[in-house]
Amino acid sequence: MTQELGVAMIGYAFMGAAHSQAWRVAPHFFDLPVTPVMRVVAGRNKDGVEAAAAKLGWEEASTDWRSLLERDDIGLFDICTPGDSHKEIALAALAAGKHVLCEKPLANSVEEAEVMTAAATKAFEEHGTLAMVGFTYRRLPAMQLARKLIADGRIGEIRHVRAQYLQDWISDPMAPLSWRLDKEKAGSGALGDIGAHIVDLTQFITGQQITEVSGSLKTFVTERPKPASFSGLSGEASDEMGPVTVDDAATFLANLSGGAIGVYEATRFAYGRKNAIRIEINGSLGSLAYDFEDMNVLHFFDATEPAETAGFRRIVVTEPEHAYISHWWPAGHGLGYEHAFSHQVVDLMDAIAAGKEPSPTFADGLQVQRVLDAVERSSESRSWTSV
Amino acid sequence: MTQELGVAMIGYAFMGAAHSQAWRVAPHFFDLPVTPVMRVVAGRNKDGVEAAAAKLGWEEASTDWRSLLERDDIGLFDICTPGDSHKEIALAALAAGKHVLCEKPLANSVEEAEVMTAAATKAFEEHGTLAMVGFTYRRLPAMQLARKLIADGRIGEIRHVRAQYLQDWISDPMAPLSWRLDKEKAGSGALGDIGAHIVDLTQFITGQQITEVSGSLKTFVTERPKPASFSGLSGEASDEMGPVTVDDAATFLANLSGGAIGVYEATRFAYGRKNAIRIEINGSLGSLAYDFEDMNVLHFFDATEPAETAGFRRIVVTEPEHAYISHWWPAGHGLGYEHAFSHQVVDLMDAIAAGKEPSPTFADGLQVQRVLDAVERSSESRSWTSV
Amino acid sequence: MTQELGVAMIGYAFMGAAHSQAWRVAPHFFDLPVTPVMRVVAGRNKDGVEAAAAKLGWEEASTDWRSLLERDDIGLFDICTPGDSHKEIALAALAAGKHVLCEKPLANSVEEAEVMTAAATKAFEEHGTLAMVGFTYRRLPAMQLARKLIADGRIGEIRHVRAQYLQDWISDPMAPLSWRLDKEKAGSGALGDIGAHIVDLTQFITGQQITEVSGSLKTFVTERPKPASFSGLSGEASDEMGPVTVDDAATFLANLSGGAIGVYEATRFAYGRKNAIRIEINGSLGSLAYDFEDMNVLHFFDATEPAETAGFRRIVVTEPEHAYISHWWPAGHGLGYEHAFSHQVVDLMDAIAAGKEPSPTFADGLQVQRVLDAVERSSESRSWTSV
Amino acid sequence: MTQELGVAMIGYAFMGAAHSQAWRVAPHFFDLPVTPVMRVVAGRNKDGVEAAAAKLGWEEASTDWRSLLERDDIGLFDICTPGDSHKEIALAALAAGKHVLCEKPLANSVEEAEVMTAAATKAFEEHGTLAMVGFTYRRLPAMQLARKLIADGRIGEIRHVRAQYLQDWISDPMAPLSWRLDKEKAGSGALGDIGAHIVDLTQFITGQQITEVSGSLKTFVTERPKPASFSGLSGEASDEMGPVTVDDAATFLANLSGGAIGVYEATRFAYGRKNAIRIEINGSLGSLAYDFEDMNVLHFFDATEPAETAGFRRIVVTEPEHAYISHWWPAGHGLGYEHAFSHQVVDLMDAIAAGKEPSPTFADGLQVQRVLDAVERSSESRSWTSV
Repeated sequence: MTQELGVAMIGYAFMGAAHSQAWRVAPHFFDLPVTPVMRVVAGRNKDGVEAAAAKLGWEEASTDWRSLLERDDIGLFDICTPGDSHKEIALAALAAGKHVLCEKPLANSVEEAEVMTAAATKAFEEHGTLAMVGFTYRRLPAMQLARKLIADGRIGEIRHVRAQYLQDWISDPMAPLSWRLDKEKAGSGALGDIGAHIVDLTQFITGQQITEVSGSLKTFVTERPKPASFSGLSGEASDEMGPVTVDDAATFLANLSGGAIGVYEATRFAYGRKNAIRIEINGSLGSLAYDFEDMNVLHFFDATEPAETAGFRRIVVTEPEHAYISHWWPAGHGLGYEHAFSHQVVDLMDAIAAGKEPSPTFADGLQVQRVLDAVERSSESRSWTSV
Repeated sequence: MTQELGVAMIGYAFMGAAHSQAWRVAPHFFDLPVTPVMRVVAGRNKDGVEAAAAKLGWEEASTDWRSLLERDDIGLFDICTPGDSHKEIALAALAAGKHVLCEKPLANSVEEAEVMTAAATKAFEEHGTLAMVGFTYRRLPAMQLARKLIADGRIGEIRHVRAQYLQDWISDPMAPLSWRLDKEKAGSGALGDIGAHIVDLTQFITGQQITEVSGSLKTFVTERPKPASFSGLSGEASDEMGPVTVDDAATFLANLSGGAIGVYEATRFAYGRKNAIRIEINGSLGSLAYDFEDMNVLHFFDATEPAETAGFRRIVVTEPEHAYISHWWPAGHGLGYEHAFSHQVVDLMDAIAAGKEPSPTFADGLQVQRVLDAVERSSESRSWTSV
Repeated sequence: MTQELGVAMIGYAFMGAAHSQAWRVAPHFFDLPVTPVMRVVAGRNKDGVEAAAAKLGWEEASTDWRSLLERDDIGLFDICTPGDSHKEIALAALAAGKHVLCEKPLANSVEEAEVMTAAATKAFEEHGTLAMVGFTYRRLPAMQLARKLIADGRIGEIRHVRAQYLQDWISDPMAPLSWRLDKEKAGSGALGDIGAHIVDLTQFITGQQITEVSGSLKTFVTERPKPASFSGLSGEASDEMGPVTVDDAATFLANLSGGAIGVYEATRFAYGRKNAIRIEINGSLGSLAYDFEDMNVLHFFDATEPAETAGFRRIVVTEPEHAYISHWWPAGHGLGYEHAFSHQVVDLMDAIAAGKEPSPTFADGLQVQRVLDAVERSSESRSWTSV
Repeated sequence: MTQELGVAMIGYAFMGAAHSQAWRVAPHFFDLPVTPVMRVVAGRNKDGVEAAAAKLGWEEASTDWRSLLERDDIGLFDICTPGDSHKEIALAALAAGKHVLCEKPLANSVEEAEVMTAAATKAFEEHGTLAMVGFTYRRLPAMQLARKLIADGRIGEIRHVRAQYLQDWISDPMAPLSWRLDKEKAGSGALGDIGAHIVDLTQFITGQQITEVSGSLKTFVTERPKPASFSGLSGEASDEMGPVTVDDAATFLANLSGGAIGVYEATRFAYGRKNAIRIEINGSLGSLAYDFEDMNVLHFFDATEPAETAGFRRIVVTEPEHAYISHWWPAGHGLGYEHAFSHQVVDLMDAIAAGKEPSPTFADGLQVQRVLDAVERSSESRSWTSV
């Protein structure tokens, strides 16, 4: 019988649903050294949070997340709220000795992220409390393989990083406002919401960090209908218009610490691209390419092969030899979007059991935040900017 | 509060794990009119079934499925055993007034399937007891869309059906024996295991039935190492050899009830193809194409479009407009292999609540069995054979 | 200065245009040991053939191909007419000591093909005169590479051959009749026109021959408008209807001489597939896959690679190491449909200079004819039939 | 009988071979109002140019291109030399009343391009002499279709332009130097050689011009072996090293005149990408995507379709309805790299016959040059720079 760990989840929208599924499913496929227990989901709206508890499978609902800080049966805070509340909740949880899993982006500003990181470092050093940021896509088996191949030197010295995160859900100018289009809530738009992912993924895969950027933020549609009621991604529109205060798209060039150069683009205006995370890395011995639209596949070009038979290999990353896969299904029976969240649970439970810092730490989240901040500053100054 | 329905699952290998996941997950994403409760998992091996109960999340373990027939807190038998035991369990369950979900192929022979179908029909007519066969792939959103487009006349009169189910897990002649290579247990090899799926899928999508076939069964590797111990797909090999008594590959031509002609192929010897279910349908107004290796996508060619802009549309079947999708994630956040099992639970619970026959019925399973049988007979007689 | 070889081309429709381009272009890219000279194009219609001579670049036009038999400045007959005239022209040309290049299918019947093959063998043995049949697709660099990889044992013992030739140009029931739909002229429909190509290609690549088949021919549309005037593929329709006397689609299972099993399909009714020649070969050590819709690419799965990085390699077959390529463009600057015809000229000129039998010989064409014939007989007898 | 136009081609390397093929082939597939005659090829090396004349099919060879200015039987100069000689030859030819076709980039500097453009404008206005720059890829049928769809408003207002030109031919640091790596000869590296193409293509397709850029040039390998002898792309290396004086890769962000934002990347260091010209355009009503690795295909997403069946259409651009295609082969019988050069000949001959300015003019070439120049200046100033 493994030790139990009570979890409190704050927020219950899209990310809350994904996290709930992971908390529920992971223990049935993986041998976890610590068993998470879905204790409480917390939110501001009483009816909403109670419905969420029932639907998402939490033992209790709460409208007062602070009250959970004192409970001994809760050992971990899982923060799934918009970015403007991350700092407050994370600091309180860490201070109370609770482990923290915080959705990305870590915070809405570098300053907040710095405070959070300092608190996390202190909490770990003094109390062994862990703090992880939720860059879930790292835990796709294909991304794990990409990192491994690069670490093993299979594509040599990295020269090019090419990353795009393309969505289309607000391509229509009449798509209504949501908190994701409100700078106060979300911090930024495409940049922080999806750009953060490709910053983290490419840094994670390559082992290099972005050191300077030349960026440009663009808002194509500056006014949108207000939603008819509180809603998430797909709400109804009202007749009243309100301002979009974040970027619709972010593009930037980058230099990386190991000498590679990068081109990044994040947009919610690429009609027909639903959730296309595309990464291509070219090195002195080969290349890697990935597209989340074919999420269980990694493409690998090995330039050391004879020219006659060299070609991008379409590796279906569902073999038992691939990360996490042996716990799921036979080869070819592909994973879906949410499985990476289960992997996140697995890795976090392993870290807690081992008393080791998890990956990615808040410091990793801070570093991504610094890149995003540099992109914003560069977009204003219209020149290259150091991270 | 919805009505609860106690489930007993018999068998706990690959299919057992997939079904368990579905029973657990479906209620958290869909509003089910009847709530399944994971009461008991049953199997022959005491240690094995107890470990499975713990791992897969069942309340109890049992080594005596017959004892479950009498329990009032169990309303449904979920049969996940090899084909040789389907008939016995299904008949007993139906006789005891339990609903039945039976994995495919329905049985190891037409005769068995006929008896089961007769029992199912009787049980439904006399007691409203439901019996469904587990052709899960029907419930892929892409397959639902394919059926809808054909039913709506979007590709016109169907002329060609082209279906392949390609795997490679025993391409290596030293891959060990398993029950799936034993005719006594499995009934047939690639034909019944995976060929059954493409027979069902193409009939489901097109609304036509296969009426005659010219088939050929082939066993490439007639002897294999016995497994070192009881194991599933990926066991260790021993030094002793044993016979393969089923087909490694099945190919057949077919005529369909609506005038279409078909070409079918099922094999476990297509190196590099992990679980490639490929279906292409050509009609008088367009075509459809699908490959499970890109499982969330359906390709549709509409010949009524002007030639200048006509082309196969790569429809990412993850929009809220697509079957089941609105209950899961935003567009582009693709589903995985196991989600179709949740959809199966949803549809079965809906059928139970409505008191309507589920789809596919045992009669559907019997019809598939008759096609498989005709292929076997045709392979022996080396001539066209009626279903 | 190399020796010149006067060419007379009989027929000037689609194939005539493709051959003319090859005669004209090949000498400028390859170092030919014999230089072809485009002397005469022959046809029945005086205006037509004169216009063709001007357009296609022939020195002279003739309405009497027999008169060309006596000319010393003509050393090769290039037969691009429908199949019903192949025998007569080829026999006459060989008897007159002219080399022959004959479009496929070699003839409209096995009997004709046998007579032609006997004459070709005799002509070569007695006079060193060469006779080649135009299975041009063999000379695609990707097909050359496929053959080489198999010959080198890279995919091991062959188990599966999967071949489709899919077109859609008569999917519309109102597409008018042409000589290709007339059994007298064309011999057969999809079977001989395009099925012949995949029979030859798969036999060429694998080095195995089809020994028996179970086939089925289907005519979906039995009556079509007669063309408004003589025309090729895309003529205008008249108001009068006429019968289609050939198959619209041909499907067959096959056994091959080396133990492989095959599934073949040729159709002109696959809407959206314009010229999709698809070949997939699975062996005991790997697989190959090809689709002419991506004509410069061969996919190769090497099962001897570690599972972690194994995957179908997308080999862009445009490297200098690939057949014919060093004479054309830099890597990635792909070839088009017609280049294989230039390669045919190159190989034929090399064979003539070397005094060696060309590949494919008339005997190869006869063997394909026998396969087609067996498919037709099998379709009638509805049982497996030996080639 | 159409009027003849004598052509003199200066330079006979890669581009010379491509142009020669076009001059030879175009008249046999298209009805040209003016018939080009391949009179003279000129170059510096006597043996080389004589061999080229024989190989490429020119009537004469010359080592003195200036001597050709006075010949009445020459009406057009086709400039296929490195960029450092474009201005001199073009000015002389225009002054002599010869039409000019000049390979891209138009010149090695904006200043040169301005002088050339002024001369071209004057020559046209005063004498009706035409000057065209060789942005051949415009004449790919897929690119013509892309432009047409945008012009017809099918993707609405353009928001994103995403363009990459990826090659790998000098990824190996030991690949030898060539004139293309010498700033004196080539002007720039990847930027001018291949970046120029995606600048022109995206401007051509969208009808928008790049107005400002933020760019970065990178040289990964600063020293390479000198070639063993004069050679083109694939020469042997000597033991001596020499400097690379151009960029290996160019990346830049862009703003376009119509409000779109762009991301561009040109590199010769993308292992596995042979000649991947990738363009993706997102608009307010849809998207277009293209990759030259699948050169006969254009992908089109029409957002006005119902969500249920919306998807990127894979348009095989080989129908008679597509630009240039009716002159070539039946649908699906794809074109190759060199066909666009024949289309260039067709369009130039049409312009000459019509006495109209060709497209693209030298002014178009100058505009591209200005963009390239702005990228270079931006790379130095490390800030956004106006074109």
